[in-house]
Amino acid sequence: MSFSPLIQDLIDAFRVLPGVGPKTAQRMAFHLLERDRHGASTLATALTVAAEKVGHCSCCRTLSENELCSICADNSRDESQICVLESPVDMLAIEQTGGFNGGYFVLMGHLSPIDGIGPDDLGLDLLFKRLESGAVKEMILATNPTVEGEATAHFIAEQIKHLDIRVTRIAHGVPVGGELEYVDGGTLAHAMAGRRSMN
Amino acid sequence: MSFSPLIQDLIDAFRVLPGVGPKTAQRMAFHLLERDRHGASTLATALTVAAEKVGHCSCCRTLSENELCSICADNSRDESQICVLESPVDMLAIEQTGGFNGGYFVLMGHLSPIDGIGPDDLGLDLLFKRLESGAVKEMILATNPTVEGEATAHFIAEQIKHLDIRVTRIAHGVPVGGELEYVDGGTLAHAMAGRRSMN
Ligand SMILES: [Zn+2]
Ligand SMILES: [Zn+2]
Repeated sequence: MSFSPLIQDLIDAFRVLPGVGPKTAQRMAFHLLERDRHGASTLATALTVAAEKVGHCSCCRTLSENELCSICADNSRDESQICVLESPVDMLAIEQTGGFNGGYFVLMGHLSPIDGIGPDDLGLDLLFKRLESGAVKEMILATNPTVEGEATAHFIAEQIKHLDIRVTRIAHGVPVGGELEYVDGGTLAHAMAGRRSMN
Repeated sequence: MSFSPLIQDLIDAFRVLPGVGPKTAQRMAFHLLERDRHGASTLATALTVAAEKVGHCSCCRTLSENELCSICADNSRDESQICVLESPVDMLAIEQTGGFNGGYFVLMGHLSPIDGIGPDDLGLDLLFKRLESGAVKEMILATNPTVEGEATAHFIAEQIKHLDIRVTRIAHGVPVGGELEYVDGGTLAHAMAGRRSMN
């Protein structure tokens, strides 16, 4: 015996979510079908709309349904500083420290030759164009303190050493091997304050 | 700063899933938007179709998109035995033991006065009609070995004591306070074999 096809399809579909194994997927499917059909429809709509409408900010590459994200569209931000991050959630983490008022650039990943992720996949052309425009005086490399994050930071620093821009790396106040997303605000604010020059 | 509205809507929508808190919801939303838009669409479609099409088997009440579930539609099953369960996942658990060939009745819950769940919500009218038809010789009450599951089993046994039907309860081989869904097949087969009469 197995579940009827539509139920099995739903269980299988939940497996696309990170950290969701067969038992969890089954529990999710039955929870919604037995107790929350309205929640199931709301989730379906949110998924459809987001998958269709959410693209990337044309300036910083973060996920956004608008041409410019709310930060790039904000004229009060300091154009002379740009903070380079791996992911949109890291942007939220830095914003929540309240200690940074510059702009951002989101790589949406890190260099990973083994996965075939090179400079083009990280939008580095767009970053370099922004740096070459002359407005940026300091670039803070805030990629994750992992092997890949460090390698990505060093690669970017190397590529722009001909430009008169101060390049800094957030301090190792953040635990080595960890991910920015899970660091508390105090540690992250400390790491930003203790950033050191890379050139 | 917060995420753009459609991203926040998606994060909020994931909170309908059991065990999913704000951080997990955020990770799910970004995982799909950054890396698996196809998975997002597949999940949206599965949710929509299942929420619209999956109803209840008209005979045993389990979740099914057909008028009769695959077991109720199977003529080779033994009509003289009926196993009463709280949930469709318990049905799968019993089927996987391979030791039962009778029919089922799924309560889709248990009696819970505090939550306003009474006999009508468990489809007991439908169960009693099936028992009164005369084909059933034994009803195995396999509700969970929890306080509510026991109370529900005793209530059902009490209601049908005027009928000439053997009423049994699965043995307490299953851990008290546990849920059938998480019991291994061997223990469950043992519990079925060791069922005792309740009338
Ligand atoms: Zn932006
Ligand atoms: Zn059925």
